[in-house]
Amino acid sequence: MSRVVVDVMPKPEILDPQGKAITGSLQRLGFEGLSVRQGKRFEIEVAGDLTEERLDQIRDAAEKLLANTVIEAFTVRVEED
Amino acid sequence: MSRVVVDVMPKPEILDPQGKAITGSLQRLGFEGLSVRQGKRFEIEVAGDLTEERLDQIRDAAEKLLANTVIEAFTVRVEED
Repeated sequence: MSRVVVDVMPKPEILDPQGKAITGSLQRLGFEGLSVRQGKRFEIEVAGDLTEERLDQIRDAAEKLLANTVIEAFTVRVEED
Repeated sequence: MSRVVVDVMPKPEILDPQGKAITGSLQRLGFEGLSVRQGKRFEIEVAGDLTEERLDQIRDAAEKLLANTVIEAFTVRVEED
């Protein structure tokens, strides 16, 4: 069983209202000088061997289902134990 | 300017309905043998030096605001360029 992590973040040029709200809340709580952007993290358990073909499949799935590539960028990486 | 990443995931013993839905959708799209859990990723830009005190502050913020520690676990790490 291997684990692959897909991180999905709003593209830099895209406004991030959730991140803005969190940045504001942190300031009100007294945490100064922090600017937050919020994205998503997917942990994928892969049955069987993690071949290069399998990784390509996961990149394909990330593009089709996990990220909205109009407004989001994603990275796929294998997590070592 | 330093960047700190906070990853927030549902605890292993907690059901993850979003992840279950994605796992189901992937199967219907023909991606077999993948099991997904969904969490959140926060990228935090820190103004000034990233001291150990500043990191403690961010761990505090993660616990208070970014994660619901009843059902979620979080990790804080410094992202190198």
